[in-house]
Amino acid sequence: MDEKFEIDATDVEQESSTFKEAARRSDALWADLPRDPARYRVLTGERPTGPLHVGHLFGTVANRVRIQELGATTFIVIADYQVLTDRDTADAVGANVHEAILDYLAAGLDPENGRTFFFSHSHVPELNQLLLPFMSLVTTAELDRNPTVKEEIRAAGLRQVNALMYTYPIHQAADILFCQGNVVPVGRDQLPHLELTRKIARRFNERFAPDAPVFPVPDALLSVLPVVLGTDGQKMSKSRGNTIMLKMTADETARAIKGARTDGDRQITYDPQRRPEVANLLRLVAICTGETPEAVAERIGDGGGGKLKAAVTEALNAYLAPIRDRRARYAGDPAYVRDVLRRGVARAREEAVTTLDRVRAAMNMDHGLQ
Amino acid sequence: MDEKFEIDATDVEQESSTFKEAARRSDALWADLPRDPARYRVLTGERPTGPLHVGHLFGTVANRVRIQELGATTFIVIADYQVLTDRDTADAVGANVHEAILDYLAAGLDPENGRTFFFSHSHVPELNQLLLPFMSLVTTAELDRNPTVKEEIRAAGLRQVNALMYTYPIHQAADILFCQGNVVPVGRDQLPHLELTRKIARRFNERFAPDAPVFPVPDALLSVLPVVLGTDGQKMSKSRGNTIMLKMTADETARAIKGARTDGDRQITYDPQRRPEVANLLRLVAICTGETPEAVAERIGDGGGGKLKAAVTEALNAYLAPIRDRRARYAGDPAYVRDVLRRGVARAREEAVTTLDRVRAAMNMDHGLQ
Repeated sequence: MDEKFEIDATDVEQESSTFKEAARRSDALWADLPRDPARYRVLTGERPTGPLHVGHLFGTVANRVRIQELGATTFIVIADYQVLTDRDTADAVGANVHEAILDYLAAGLDPENGRTFFFSHSHVPELNQLLLPFMSLVTTAELDRNPTVKEEIRAAGLRQVNALMYTYPIHQAADILFCQGNVVPVGRDQLPHLELTRKIARRFNERFAPDAPVFPVPDALLSVLPVVLGTDGQKMSKSRGNTIMLKMTADETARAIKGARTDGDRQITYDPQRRPEVANLLRLVAICTGETPEAVAERIGDGGGGKLKAAVTEALNAYLAPIRDRRARYAGDPAYVRDVLRRGVARAREEAVTTLDRVRAAMNMDHGLQ
Repeated sequence: MDEKFEIDATDVEQESSTFKEAARRSDALWADLPRDPARYRVLTGERPTGPLHVGHLFGTVANRVRIQELGATTFIVIADYQVLTDRDTADAVGANVHEAILDYLAAGLDPENGRTFFFSHSHVPELNQLLLPFMSLVTTAELDRNPTVKEEIRAAGLRQVNALMYTYPIHQAADILFCQGNVVPVGRDQLPHLELTRKIARRFNERFAPDAPVFPVPDALLSVLPVVLGTDGQKMSKSRGNTIMLKMTADETARAIKGARTDGDRQITYDPQRRPEVANLLRLVAICTGETPEAVAERIGDGGGGKLKAAVTEALNAYLAPIRDRRARYAGDPAYVRDVLRRGVARAREEAVTTLDRVRAAMNMDHGLQ
């Protein structure tokens, strides 16, 4: 790995002070969002690298549904180009985009509410164009320093970094700012990206539009999300084969849970430190039933791993049943799914065209063509 | 300056072997272009950083007019965003784009021939989007190595390099490939950029479209252009105040020539080594009248700097008179100039939309939306 992408102590220090500031603003945002949802535009989304699993569902996706219900406009980007930041092939992208929309719809993101929009990067050229003015506002030294990019490069085991990976925090800024997004639900690890977006918004306004700012300076909406591990007690990930996917059947789910790792102690207790695999299964039940993990443990008592797994299977399948029903219904209607994407893309382009016109005007680049 | 952008010996060696290969292909191209112009699409252009001077006119612009006359389709990009690679302000861009088109029209680039098109970067989002797939095909190591970027960073005296400067060779690839450009008139110093474009075209085809290549692999069209220096014998450049601009009046031209540097020897001879300033003025006359510089020197004899300058003024003003007349006519009709740009942009977008559709299809990203 290129040594310029190694993580150093300054990164960690910097990150900590940024976090405190962001957390303060996030608290204020959580308070104001339900009071005045019309003021807020949420940008969220991810790369279509594979089907959603219950880790996503109980984490980021449930959080998105919750924020959607507060009444703000939500744009969900399906970041198809970004799949190529750390892999060479786009073979599965088409199928994955379709599956991702099915998963989102099943989970409760609702394009029929008139304020939730799905779009794919590859279909909004005016958003992508923002990359050009934005790149003029960021130095290579700043990109070299981005700790999240460094971490992703490390995690993907990349020996060489391509220019798409290197610049993708700037592209993320375009994702957020093209629709005047001012709320971005993120985890702590994504804060450095959002900090860069905030810098880009500020710099653009200062440099090109000092009298009439074109961009809002967006805030992070931080959430404490439940940690859901895979059936082996490790991070849930397709490549480890330890995931429960939304698109599995009830039988497939039962088989996957049957193979989950537990321990030899028949007395079930909630002890995340000493018994992480058992604790993870207890949390899964708790999320589905609304109990505490401790209550679930008590209910199972000395039933051992077998009874615990039966409880997980029952709870998960009951919880997922309506979601899977919805998913199956949408899967049977691909024309509808395409239409959802088409409408989302149309709306995203409308926003992007308007923003780009303002950007051109601010930069003395309308050339009498508007 | 960041040390990764310093020029080293490997660059020079690499450049020399690339040059020989490119020169061979360029010769073949010069031979075939007039025979079969319909096969060729030429991409050329530059940044709108200021008005054209006679250095441009007798060099790249005359060359473009010559190539246009061979019958190929020519796209001329006015690279407005690229102005921001080495400066912080876009204040003058609007005016400069208008002036650039006036200069081009005056010089004989002809949008009425149905195969010469002017467009500005900022108005072709589908071209700019190509930056994303293309960035996935280039490593940061390759960008770090680009000798022309290093040289431009050095020439601009940049202490920090912004991401737009860093990635602009990739953006140039998009300029060339969006319209299926297969001929690029360049100087030797621009060859590294074109090499990168060739790599991107090849890599895209290999990775995403092995059975039906989407992009041509474009060739350089190398030309030996006359060297025209400024009135002080240095490189002609607006910042040195040593230029003769197309938009000057005959009187302004006379004044600028009057201030030109010569030497004390009244006997005028063409001796570029020992008398570079005098030689430059002799070449200016020669280009305008069609004489050789030696013949001009003989004609002036022992008339000294005064007679030489009078000859330059007369020759330049006579040569520039019809060009300036055309320029004044177009300057009086800004609606026409806008219309030229509007038509060029429309045609460029048509090309870009078609190419982007093919790119999306090749990358499994049409998502059922075409």
